[in-house]
Amino acid sequence: MTIPETSATQCRSGDGQTGATTIPLASVAPSGSLELLSQQEIVQLRETAKGELYELFRRCALAVLNCDGLSDSAEEVYRQFADFDIEIVQRTRGIKLELKNAPACAFVDGKIMRGVRDHLFAVLRDIVFVASELYRLGEQDQTGWTGHFDQATWHQGDEQTSNLVFHILRNAGLMLPRKPPSMVVCWGGHAISREEYDYSKSVGYHLGLRDMDICTGCGPGAMKGPMKGAAVGHAKQRNTKGRYVGITEPGIVAAESPNPIVNHLVVLPDIEKRLEAFVRFGHGIIVFPGGVGTLEEILFLLGTLMSPENKALRMPLIFTEPASSQGYFRQIDRFLVDTLGEGVREYYTIVEDDPVQVARLMQEGVADVGVQRRSNRDAFYFNWSLSIPSEMRVPFEVTHESMAALNLSFDLPAAELAVNLRRVFSGIVAGNVKDHGVRLVREHGPFALQGEPALMQAIDKLLQGFVSAGRMKLQREQYHPCYVIQAPESA
Amino acid sequence: MTIPETSATQCRSGDGQTGATTIPLASVAPSGSLELLSQQEIVQLRETAKGELYELFRRCALAVLNCDGLSDSAEEVYRQFADFDIEIVQRTRGIKLELKNAPACAFVDGKIMRGVRDHLFAVLRDIVFVASELYRLGEQDQTGWTGHFDQATWHQGDEQTSNLVFHILRNAGLMLPRKPPSMVVCWGGHAISREEYDYSKSVGYHLGLRDMDICTGCGPGAMKGPMKGAAVGHAKQRNTKGRYVGITEPGIVAAESPNPIVNHLVVLPDIEKRLEAFVRFGHGIIVFPGGVGTLEEILFLLGTLMSPENKALRMPLIFTEPASSQGYFRQIDRFLVDTLGEGVREYYTIVEDDPVQVARLMQEGVADVGVQRRSNRDAFYFNWSLSIPSEMRVPFEVTHESMAALNLSFDLPAAELAVNLRRVFSGIVAGNVKDHGVRLVREHGPFALQGEPALMQAIDKLLQGFVSAGRMKLQREQYHPCYVIQAPESA
Amino acid sequence: MTIPETSATQCRSGDGQTGATTIPLASVAPSGSLELLSQQEIVQLRETAKGELYELFRRCALAVLNCDGLSDSAEEVYRQFADFDIEIVQRTRGIKLELKNAPACAFVDGKIMRGVRDHLFAVLRDIVFVASELYRLGEQDQTGWTGHFDQATWHQGDEQTSNLVFHILRNAGLMLPRKPPSMVVCWGGHAISREEYDYSKSVGYHLGLRDMDICTGCGPGAMKGPMKGAAVGHAKQRNTKGRYVGITEPGIVAAESPNPIVNHLVVLPDIEKRLEAFVRFGHGIIVFPGGVGTLEEILFLLGTLMSPENKALRMPLIFTEPASSQGYFRQIDRFLVDTLGEGVREYYTIVEDDPVQVARLMQEGVADVGVQRRSNRDAFYFNWSLSIPSEMRVPFEVTHESMAALNLSFDLPAAELAVNLRRVFSGIVAGNVKDHGVRLVREHGPFALQGEPALMQAIDKLLQGFVSAGRMKLQREQYHPCYVIQAPESA
Amino acid sequence: MTIPETSATQCRSGDGQTGATTIPLASVAPSGSLELLSQQEIVQLRETAKGELYELFRRCALAVLNCDGLSDSAEEVYRQFADFDIEIVQRTRGIKLELKNAPACAFVDGKIMRGVRDHLFAVLRDIVFVASELYRLGEQDQTGWTGHFDQATWHQGDEQTSNLVFHILRNAGLMLPRKPPSMVVCWGGHAISREEYDYSKSVGYHLGLRDMDICTGCGPGAMKGPMKGAAVGHAKQRNTKGRYVGITEPGIVAAESPNPIVNHLVVLPDIEKRLEAFVRFGHGIIVFPGGVGTLEEILFLLGTLMSPENKALRMPLIFTEPASSQGYFRQIDRFLVDTLGEGVREYYTIVEDDPVQVARLMQEGVADVGVQRRSNRDAFYFNWSLSIPSEMRVPFEVTHESMAALNLSFDLPAAELAVNLRRVFSGIVAGNVKDHGVRLVREHGPFALQGEPALMQAIDKLLQGFVSAGRMKLQREQYHPCYVIQAPESA
Repeated sequence: MTIPETSATQCRSGDGQTGATTIPLASVAPSGSLELLSQQEIVQLRETAKGELYELFRRCALAVLNCDGLSDSAEEVYRQFADFDIEIVQRTRGIKLELKNAPACAFVDGKIMRGVRDHLFAVLRDIVFVASELYRLGEQDQTGWTGHFDQATWHQGDEQTSNLVFHILRNAGLMLPRKPPSMVVCWGGHAISREEYDYSKSVGYHLGLRDMDICTGCGPGAMKGPMKGAAVGHAKQRNTKGRYVGITEPGIVAAESPNPIVNHLVVLPDIEKRLEAFVRFGHGIIVFPGGVGTLEEILFLLGTLMSPENKALRMPLIFTEPASSQGYFRQIDRFLVDTLGEGVREYYTIVEDDPVQVARLMQEGVADVGVQRRSNRDAFYFNWSLSIPSEMRVPFEVTHESMAALNLSFDLPAAELAVNLRRVFSGIVAGNVKDHGVRLVREHGPFALQGEPALMQAIDKLLQGFVSAGRMKLQREQYHPCYVIQAPESA
Repeated sequence: MTIPETSATQCRSGDGQTGATTIPLASVAPSGSLELLSQQEIVQLRETAKGELYELFRRCALAVLNCDGLSDSAEEVYRQFADFDIEIVQRTRGIKLELKNAPACAFVDGKIMRGVRDHLFAVLRDIVFVASELYRLGEQDQTGWTGHFDQATWHQGDEQTSNLVFHILRNAGLMLPRKPPSMVVCWGGHAISREEYDYSKSVGYHLGLRDMDICTGCGPGAMKGPMKGAAVGHAKQRNTKGRYVGITEPGIVAAESPNPIVNHLVVLPDIEKRLEAFVRFGHGIIVFPGGVGTLEEILFLLGTLMSPENKALRMPLIFTEPASSQGYFRQIDRFLVDTLGEGVREYYTIVEDDPVQVARLMQEGVADVGVQRRSNRDAFYFNWSLSIPSEMRVPFEVTHESMAALNLSFDLPAAELAVNLRRVFSGIVAGNVKDHGVRLVREHGPFALQGEPALMQAIDKLLQGFVSAGRMKLQREQYHPCYVIQAPESA
Repeated sequence: MTIPETSATQCRSGDGQTGATTIPLASVAPSGSLELLSQQEIVQLRETAKGELYELFRRCALAVLNCDGLSDSAEEVYRQFADFDIEIVQRTRGIKLELKNAPACAFVDGKIMRGVRDHLFAVLRDIVFVASELYRLGEQDQTGWTGHFDQATWHQGDEQTSNLVFHILRNAGLMLPRKPPSMVVCWGGHAISREEYDYSKSVGYHLGLRDMDICTGCGPGAMKGPMKGAAVGHAKQRNTKGRYVGITEPGIVAAESPNPIVNHLVVLPDIEKRLEAFVRFGHGIIVFPGGVGTLEEILFLLGTLMSPENKALRMPLIFTEPASSQGYFRQIDRFLVDTLGEGVREYYTIVEDDPVQVARLMQEGVADVGVQRRSNRDAFYFNWSLSIPSEMRVPFEVTHESMAALNLSFDLPAAELAVNLRRVFSGIVAGNVKDHGVRLVREHGPFALQGEPALMQAIDKLLQGFVSAGRMKLQREQYHPCYVIQAPESA
Repeated sequence: MTIPETSATQCRSGDGQTGATTIPLASVAPSGSLELLSQQEIVQLRETAKGELYELFRRCALAVLNCDGLSDSAEEVYRQFADFDIEIVQRTRGIKLELKNAPACAFVDGKIMRGVRDHLFAVLRDIVFVASELYRLGEQDQTGWTGHFDQATWHQGDEQTSNLVFHILRNAGLMLPRKPPSMVVCWGGHAISREEYDYSKSVGYHLGLRDMDICTGCGPGAMKGPMKGAAVGHAKQRNTKGRYVGITEPGIVAAESPNPIVNHLVVLPDIEKRLEAFVRFGHGIIVFPGGVGTLEEILFLLGTLMSPENKALRMPLIFTEPASSQGYFRQIDRFLVDTLGEGVREYYTIVEDDPVQVARLMQEGVADVGVQRRSNRDAFYFNWSLSIPSEMRVPFEVTHESMAALNLSFDLPAAELAVNLRRVFSGIVAGNVKDHGVRLVREHGPFALQGEPALMQAIDKLLQGFVSAGRMKLQREQYHPCYVIQAPESA
């Protein structure tokens, strides 16, 4: 397969400049909910942005501005734009962002592209503003202000977490009170083959023709294909209100620029809240082939759907792949049945190589969701009724210790095992691409995993398959595993 | 001139029913910012609404629903609809308001009028929701939530107050980020003559022809006339985006139904914040003849404008009246010069009986404000640069003691005297129409005022004039003064 | 400066100027369908406007501009603004209208009010442009163009007339393809009592609360009241898309300025096509007390509805009046039964003094119309299925001869008698207020009518009633009848 | 099920069906200006559609519905869907189109795609409705109607033609009265290399980033690339109002389905009016490499711009190509200088392989056009001031005789030679792809051309170049020239 997509790369660039061309100084006025800030909020925002969040904010802003970037190595990007700086400037009228040495590709004749500007202010809104407003410590500060959420509380994985997720989505303007269900979440790898990418695009196209909207993790690969396809489908149906929602988290956005089709970007504080956002905001879910991140998502969702409280709940879930993927999902299906039992199969449908069928099934499933919500008087825009096990929601801090301590045994009930399996894959994602994880692995070697041999074997086989299929990272160079399966401590 | 406005009263009634006809049970879905609430917010909202704020909320809701009411006696209305009840009902999807025995005039064939519904939810939003969100005690409650504002702090009249006012206006969706200045605040009496009412309508009409928007205290009389006139002017100019903003406070809204033309209603927590909202939100101010409330507004504004920090600030201020008012503003002008000095005159222009001239001057003045804001990089939507003396902003609690203690002497600097004079008139407004004040006076007799004889005389003369001109209350029955001017404690 | 205005006149006046104040020169750019004209069309338009249509166009334009006018004497207005002139100026870009000595009341600070501009271009569009495009002689002129309609043909009252009416309404942008029925036609006198006016306003208000739109003949009195009331009702329901349609004809528009609430104005070529437009465009009809014009409308409608082809057709028709009108409609009812027979009563409902009831009945009736149109696959926007007797549609040219020749006898079938009776009242309208008719009567004395004595008596009694109730003309001065009932030529 | 699709074909297909899959029966309701038709118009429309225009209408409708078609052989398509039928059905409410055996690719789950429906009704509007309304014979028919344009007249190439073109564009809703210049016409081949296609896409992308709109001949290749690119640029700038205008003519639309990005499609009656529409409607022109059709366009434009009346007129014209095209435009430039003289060069700029530069120059040029139009009071939406030589506008009927008779000699003035050269290339286009031309050549052999040897040599060299570069037809099979250069007749 060789498509020397010159045109594609040209199209991804603002002005076609490549390399580290930068704009020495640029000032950008806000869009969206940051247009109207009180003086108080501005003071707080500037303090927060200058404080410990500064570096995170700077990195995410850089990733957004580097909208041409083809690398998923965050570190490389940081090195390339080491002198990039960002500052919030106060005016009576409101704020401005002042950018120094920003990547030129975000600008057209010196003016920032409106799409990039929106993403930039989404990052400011969700990383800095939300931090300063929603989940600051409950203690009252010298200004007389206190935050809404106590940080200790919102890590407990209880209903407070749902409220926090809701507030962040609402603040991002994502929820439309009366719009009937239409939001299809698409999951899948960022490092996939051209055939898989084209397939995801085709599925998106047939969803778009049926006026479905698309929500993804907002990176490349299976997170971009469905949006591109849907955009064409929407255009053919003269639908100018198509929604392309990207739900991400700081670690990811810092590593990968959101794809520019995304017209609603929201950054959740961590991976667990991001997963919760997906399943409460979406009306149906399609999974394309992917790597460990995709597995993490599948386990989060199945662990949730299998919970008895969700017995009656409708949530269409489709696994699909092109012929060229050669049974990827049969492999996944095997792994799921082996680890979670035969019952898991009633929660998903596998469709092989048939985009029209996927789109039709999803359209029907989403319509069913609408019927159920209406009859239960549930909201269309947020699935409050879904019960997510609290262990799924507590942030899993990836360290060598926490990874080693995971209990991986068939003795656990299926739901509990699903929780721990998700953590395994979450840890490997971190070790592969997230700044913090990559550093840990570089310093201390791969994460060691241990558990019941048959289980460990199943995991190992799956991961080996991912490695050999090149599903681990974007770069096609040799993959150095960030994990090692240890023999059980014997007996 | 007597116009037996049958048509007017018919037009004010939902279905033409008069008297205490009620609807036994009605349920109303929210509009605006209360459409999307988290479960957390709903719980808190319901608790707040059932707690100490319940009665206030119930009364304001009743006033809004009683959109036909011709009385400004709150007590009479409460008596008439004694069995009216309102409750917030929780649904997964959001909230509903359940109304029992609500006035029938708010309904058309059993469905609430959309305008009344908007007002009802504005009341819920600003009285209950704002209370539960913005200015609850800083202490963290058992849910892990804390409010934004410490109640102790926001009474100090410092920049925190401005932030609070800003947040409330923003939450009400009042501020449009890029709209050029056009908002004309109109002050004046609620109990005025037919000629004065018609005159205020004519001024509003000529403002409307010039695409100005109108903001008033949202009661009858001079608070309604300019809106009615502007609506006709807007219609003739095919302007369907005319804004009719009512800025009120709980004490007032409970006493008087907002006039139904108001398409943006906001309830500030107290009279001082309401006055601050007027002067920060409006781009120019027109004062029509009125009573003590109007005087209070004038003194608040002049005390502010005369402050040296506001030297350079542009704020067009016009006093105007029809020929039939026979020199009302000459009287006011005299009083202002007598008490605050000759210099006060440079802050206002008096226009006698010439609506076109008023509209032209105001249009020019508002354009000037736009030029100044632009060159200072100030916001169009909120006048952060205006410096309001903090004594003007600290709520004045009206009691017999606080009224008696007011220092009314020419020895005070003009600015300070303005502060105390404003409090005098504020107290009399309370004694005349506000529930709390009326009760105090009924129980303990009129408020006693004392001070420097010449000053007291000036006040007395003005008030006598108001009484004899019938400017004190809506009802034309005999007025029983709620104040008494005491002889100085001698020497 | 002292301008002693009552609010009513102030509100009707652009800048409050009264009398014949004029603007020496003004140039106005088009709105609506005249914004995009080809060079060819412009040439033709200018020629047509300079030719025989010039005087008619000038007069109608003057009436529209004289939006303050209180007189229904066209002649008086022409005298007052004798030096008014209007010219179409050609630019490459399109046309402009150049006005000389136009009434100042149409302007605000030198700029024409947008509402008046729309009316002005509606007049140009319907009188000049339609003439030059739609019903010019079929012969090809030297430019190679020919008109769509042959003038001879469109006077025959056949389906060509319906097509012409349709084309004119479409060209005016009046018809919205998918909007469900909501258009209530209100007929009634222009010279009515204050109580009747207020009543029509109240009915309009209750229609507006129910989201009905209003269509009238667009003059004062019962043609204005329902619109004013509906505007308030729409505002209370936050309905900013309310439609206030004025359907008029050159003779009327030249005599009376359309009321400025009208946001869609269309001028049909003659009274018959105007009546056809009413009944094909409206979904229900309400008749208020009026004079001879109202009678003409009633007879046109009843003559049509009674036609056997329309047997199955639904068309709600309500006659209504306030208590103070003292049985006006009992009188009309009597007359109708006396002349057209008892059967006529099944076509209308009389409601006495109950605006809410009128609004409810009309809302139900209009909903029924929707049901019927849907099930018949008829258009909502134009009632093609209504069959109008061709004698109703042939223009009746009013002369002393044609009036005298009318066959008024009980020997005629009811439908035919209705046709002739309509012509009687049509002629009297002309003699009362239309330029051409007034001149005829001034020169040759009143029109003589003759016919069967009992019938003539019924007519005479009705007309006497109108005279004594002051329903004949706006001016309350002594009415000089423009007709005389002659004794039969007898034997 | 196995559908071996590449993404490209998937995205072009409604439901992925290929081949001659058809929908037996479908009925489609109109959009746009055909939603409101009078009964008269419907009758006429149906008659016209059943008459001599039926076959043309059927073919164009088929091409539009066959939106997946990859062939530019019209004949092949007609054979494949030989039993396709289309009929206009009359309802009281309006019309419907009834389709029999229509290509399935235009439908999604049985419903026609909204984009295809719009194109279908554009074809009906411009081929049948325009015919029945605008340029029917001037003679009055039995219905009393006559058309606007005399067919004899509108072939004379005088100002009547401009009026006709204007009317057709207006009827298509193409012109927006107040929109500033932004419409960039892109010309170029339909059979171009992948690199050239990608280059045209990149130019479109950079135009889109600068909020330019795109107008092309609406086929594949250089007519599609700029639109696809601009759509991405618009998306990145959050511009949802991007306009993608296709201007075509019946012969072309019948041969090639308009690309589905086109959101405004208009069909002009013949190639000359189509060219006139391009140059009067567009604000600037970019030419990409192409074949004979592109040459025809270039010669039409240069012959026009070189006319002395257009001396002062600004019209930015850029020739551009990627590096891989290896001097295509140097060749064209040579040919133009050789035939029309050195002076021709001041009318165009050649940009080699630099999309950003093309976009910047065009943006500046279009802004200049805006300045000039404003200062001349010219319309933005239609260039009335451009003077087009009438010989360019008279339709050239391609036959063996007319081709042979073309005077091709350097003795002619440059402008006249340009006219004849355009006809040469117009004829070859017909012989290559148009139904009528292809048939002529099949029956009578290639068109013979003759003229001055040096000139004939220049032409021959250019055409040989096109043939060897594969620029003649879509299919890459062996090209059989439809022309032959003859030796001069002797001596």
